Amino acid sequence: MKVAIVGVTGYSGLELLRLLEHHPDVEVVSVHASQSVGSKLTELLPHLQKSYDLIIEEVDSEKIISTADLVFLATPSGLSKTLAGDFVEKGFPVIDLSGDFRLPASTYQKWYGQTAAPTEQLEVFTYGLSEWADVKGKRFIANPGCYATAVSLSLLPLMNIVEEKQIIVDAKSGLTGAGKKLAETSHFANVHENYQTYKLNHHQHIPEIMQSLKQVHPDVPYIQFSTSLLPINRGIVATFYLTLKKGKTAEDVEKAYLDCYQDKPFVRLTGKELPNLHQVIGSNFVDIGWVYNPVTEVLTVMAVLDNLVKGAAGQAIQNLNLMYGFPETAGLNLLPTYI
Amino acid sequence: MKVAIVGVTGYSGLELLRLLEHHPDVEVVSVHASQSVGSKLTELLPHLQKSYDLIIEEVDSEKIISTADLVFLATPSGLSKTLAGDFVEKGFPVIDLSGDFRLPASTYQKWYGQTAAPTEQLEVFTYGLSEWADVKGKRFIANPGCYATAVSLSLLPLMNIVEEKQIIVDAKSGLTGAGKKLAETSHFANVHENYQTYKLNHHQHIPEIMQSLKQVHPDVPYIQFSTSLLPINRGIVATFYLTLKKGKTAEDVEKAYLDCYQDKPFVRLTGKELPNLHQVIGSNFVDIGWVYNPVTEVLTVMAVLDNLVKGAAGQAIQNLNLMYGFPETAGLNLLPTYI
Amino acid sequence: MKVAIVGVTGYSGLELLRLLEHHPDVEVVSVHASQSVGSKLTELLPHLQKSYDLIIEEVDSEKIISTADLVFLATPSGLSKTLAGDFVEKGFPVIDLSGDFRLPASTYQKWYGQTAAPTEQLEVFTYGLSEWADVKGKRFIANPGCYATAVSLSLLPLMNIVEEKQIIVDAKSGLTGAGKKLAETSHFANVHENYQTYKLNHHQHIPEIMQSLKQVHPDVPYIQFSTSLLPINRGIVATFYLTLKKGKTAEDVEKAYLDCYQDKPFVRLTGKELPNLHQVIGSNFVDIGWVYNPVTEVLTVMAVLDNLVKGAAGQAIQNLNLMYGFPETAGLNLLPTYI
Amino acid sequence: MKVAIVGVTGYSGLELLRLLEHHPDVEVVSVHASQSVGSKLTELLPHLQKSYDLIIEEVDSEKIISTADLVFLATPSGLSKTLAGDFVEKGFPVIDLSGDFRLPASTYQKWYGQTAAPTEQLEVFTYGLSEWADVKGKRFIANPGCYATAVSLSLLPLMNIVEEKQIIVDAKSGLTGAGKKLAETSHFANVHENYQTYKLNHHQHIPEIMQSLKQVHPDVPYIQFSTSLLPINRGIVATFYLTLKKGKTAEDVEKAYLDCYQDKPFVRLTGKELPNLHQVIGSNFVDIGWVYNPVTEVLTVMAVLDNLVKGAAGQAIQNLNLMYGFPETAGLNLLPTYI
Repeated sequence: MKVAIVGVTGYSGLELLRLLEHHPDVEVVSVHASQSVGSKLTELLPHLQKSYDLIIEEVDSEKIISTADLVFLATPSGLSKTLAGDFVEKGFPVIDLSGDFRLPASTYQKWYGQTAAPTEQLEVFTYGLSEWADVKGKRFIANPGCYATAVSLSLLPLMNIVEEKQIIVDAKSGLTGAGKKLAETSHFANVHENYQTYKLNHHQHIPEIMQSLKQVHPDVPYIQFSTSLLPINRGIVATFYLTLKKGKTAEDVEKAYLDCYQDKPFVRLTGKELPNLHQVIGSNFVDIGWVYNPVTEVLTVMAVLDNLVKGAAGQAIQNLNLMYGFPETAGLNLLPTYI
Repeated sequence: MKVAIVGVTGYSGLELLRLLEHHPDVEVVSVHASQSVGSKLTELLPHLQKSYDLIIEEVDSEKIISTADLVFLATPSGLSKTLAGDFVEKGFPVIDLSGDFRLPASTYQKWYGQTAAPTEQLEVFTYGLSEWADVKGKRFIANPGCYATAVSLSLLPLMNIVEEKQIIVDAKSGLTGAGKKLAETSHFANVHENYQTYKLNHHQHIPEIMQSLKQVHPDVPYIQFSTSLLPINRGIVATFYLTLKKGKTAEDVEKAYLDCYQDKPFVRLTGKELPNLHQVIGSNFVDIGWVYNPVTEVLTVMAVLDNLVKGAAGQAIQNLNLMYGFPETAGLNLLPTYI
Repeated sequence: MKVAIVGVTGYSGLELLRLLEHHPDVEVVSVHASQSVGSKLTELLPHLQKSYDLIIEEVDSEKIISTADLVFLATPSGLSKTLAGDFVEKGFPVIDLSGDFRLPASTYQKWYGQTAAPTEQLEVFTYGLSEWADVKGKRFIANPGCYATAVSLSLLPLMNIVEEKQIIVDAKSGLTGAGKKLAETSHFANVHENYQTYKLNHHQHIPEIMQSLKQVHPDVPYIQFSTSLLPINRGIVATFYLTLKKGKTAEDVEKAYLDCYQDKPFVRLTGKELPNLHQVIGSNFVDIGWVYNPVTEVLTVMAVLDNLVKGAAGQAIQNLNLMYGFPETAGLNLLPTYI
Repeated sequence: MKVAIVGVTGYSGLELLRLLEHHPDVEVVSVHASQSVGSKLTELLPHLQKSYDLIIEEVDSEKIISTADLVFLATPSGLSKTLAGDFVEKGFPVIDLSGDFRLPASTYQKWYGQTAAPTEQLEVFTYGLSEWADVKGKRFIANPGCYATAVSLSLLPLMNIVEEKQIIVDAKSGLTGAGKKLAETSHFANVHENYQTYKLNHHQHIPEIMQSLKQVHPDVPYIQFSTSLLPINRGIVATFYLTLKKGKTAEDVEKAYLDCYQDKPFVRLTGKELPNLHQVIGSNFVDIGWVYNPVTEVLTVMAVLDNLVKGAAGQAIQNLNLMYGFPETAGLNLLPTYI
């Protein structure tokens, strides 16, 4: 199977290259970007020397359609929607890693502050939270956001066990979650030896999470969601403070997680040992642990993942595998770097 | 005024040296430790060259009493209680930076897992949360813990405004909070590029915080308290998720904080701009911000401080100033390093 | 004494504020920048709350001359030369922290790739390497660069002891040395967990160093100079590989350093114990150590300093003290943060 | 092919597990350690969940010999020599990652300060610098040290081009190079935001490098070698300052490197673009760049590698591949993590 990557110089694009190197059934046949067109990939990105011998091409949908079988749009939110049209029109498979095809038009416009993609495009996309979505045979996948993946995977199994009005999420991310954009907030001196909370109560992943939760439990009205920047490169940590419904116990929590995930290759349950980031960095794993406090009656849940793998490129490949019936772990059997 | 520092080679001891260098009314006349006795301070700690010309002495209470006016015990919990007896007996002023004199005996034994100091010693100590305690003229101060300082200062003004059964604290600390002890958890490779939650629901600062809160609001039954390790050297971040009591509003929160702190030199209110760690590192400031979310009806509060300054040595000097009637900011007018 | 700071929001400007807070004889009466004019300093820089109550003003030389006694230009190279003219013309004292007044016009143009300041301005400036310059009573100071300070202070005492044709310097810097500018090279993800060598053989501090060395030893033809970026915020490390002249010994090295620096308050000699960065960060100290290897006949010297203090704002204040006859350490008696 | 790993909980052992997961021809059949014997690997190391389902066993050479085809000794220097005897005696293949079998007995004793392995064992080991050694068909491999790999690979091609008496190496390493041992020097607070030079002129890799160089060029008398600790987890940077022999040019350097390495899969030449660490971390690549300065007549060379991969576990697997005739890159085709 042949794939093209658009936005190859961004973090998600690079991570697709890193992971697809190991995929037995997929070959990257072309890479595309808006800058550095005509350059050798390895001139711009010397870490790819002796691995990828490709030229960066402009984004030419016709050429992609004629030479590849699927395109990854590893482009920022706002850009994907301007590129996807040609592919959608011709029924050419797309996995989009941006936020452009995850939400209904009105919700997108409210949270992203810009015009949404045309409805006829939005309608054909399937939201690809791999463990919960049915993407087999689908052609157009909206790959979930990194925070949304960590939060939805943790909460979905618990929606009948915890009080829907008392969901508090304290989430943290490494810097690559914000992409390569130059900004004061990504300047080394501002991030290093610091901890900053941002977009409190108005992060654009909130509606994405709510949409996932409501599919399982339509009554959930909202979540309290904070996001903070950790002085690290990779990683999402999501800490949840939850209240059990009357009659529910910590055993129900364990049972719910096991029921949902014991057969899933990339979700690992760590029980009372709360996971740390080293356990997952570099891999497609999500590790989830939980502790119930009988004094305060609060259930603490903690989930960790690598935002560039399970939170972006890894899940995109997992979706590709599920779409085409490849083994779910093909190309994704990398262990965490750990240290 | 002449002071001695016991435990000078620990982080709090070193920070006392750093800060007292600027104190117009205090001179460090002797420094003490259990190791390296007889060495020049600058041999062991070359960063003190051209500043402090002292020899590390063993801990000799008689000599300290005869040459100094007050002793700082910058020793670990468990050690202070074995050293304080002589000083207490003779009425010689002590500021203790450990956990040994903060709690009643039974509570101490439960949370620290060891025998408490004798009751007659415990009784003479005053818990020195500077902005709330009355330490003027006192002789024996139990200096608060770093987490406890951040949490108590943030919550005390709100105790009549927020629901006492729904206090959730997600606190984070830089590594120096754990001291110099060698342990897997302080090994660089395990901390760097990681985020780890530890002692969930059983951190020894929980009873210390509860004791402070109950003095103002005896009905508060518990707090949900988690502590995590940030890959940085200095800093405490405490994030609170709180529910307003019926009829209370965000304005009441602002008013409560202003009433308590607008005249306090070291507490700064940042309103809706949540503070980040760079704002306080290196200084004795605590910065507190808060945001009310009308959708979820959750009040998010965030407090930051430097665990070695306001969370340890700085507050100890602030207490000394208050005990002896020096200006509260004497020796403490250092700006944050910021970057 | 009243001073104005132009470029207050840059790292050097902020560090001037931090240090001058402690200066017994100097008051900051106005702060200036090209952006955010009219804003309260504390709105932009909340870490200054409860310390500095100033408004950011535009750069108005007339007003500065009428209200202050000296101006610090903490502006980038290229900008200072456009601002200094008015002050120079009126004989109003200037300490410039940029590279604009350190070099003769032709050298400046070659290494900075832009037009130099007018010769009549260049001529009035004194290069202020505090331990070697005679700045007493001077009005216009070109404050040295951070690398140049570390390198010149280390090499100047040795110029008659080491072979002038075999000077190799492997220098490293924390990120703040590059200033606040947004660039790929200052993006957190590119700096963290990385080590990059840049501007090899063409760093603009090379001619500045050569100029210093030639004043003492006109025969020195060149130095081999490399600069690398460390994943830290503050600090310069300069490692030197030197060859002793025939007949010279390690004892001559020690004697030369002692002769030059034992009475200097900010240069500390650590002998065979090579210094590390923690020893100086936050302070105006330069620590220098050296080891002679009798097998290879190479003398290794290592110098460390804080690029924002001794490498910029601290040395500027040291120069001010020397210019006006204040104690050399006034405002500069801060100990290193150490941890 | 079946392998056993002794010292599995150390960094090199864990990295062997990470890499061998991808090896098409090798299966890890048992893992051994001196501690935690009987525990599930995943209890101790939760990041291996859903990957390795093994129990940690004690080191039982008979059992290893009966169940595996080769043993990796990923044990510290000093321990390997006590374990290797049984295997050597029975002719059972060993790849040892420690320093115990790299040097002649007298040299080992001098630099490691302890008794060497018996000569009959030392004699059977081949030093496995993969690009230069002939390990095909060998049974006992002494895997090179991390610094030694970077330095020898960079210098060997140049031995007839550069002056053998003027070799200066300024090498730096991330913390994992020092292993998991708890020490003040590995305490997070001491490493973070710091840069420390250690073991100047007496690092134990010096004789290892000399031995490699002398095989190609017996006249090389010594190297000047310094080693410093970077505040990062992984990576070796070696910077070389070299003098060309009379008549030699930068073109000779390029030719020499190309001749030696253009067909080698893991050595990449970056020419005038000096490599940075991100280019290699996580992979088995060594990247080498060089710049000649016609003013100073100094050739600067810079090499980077991941100390746990090419500097330890990766090269061990590369050696295994070469010993047994597997493709050299089998199990090692991981791209650098890059960010």
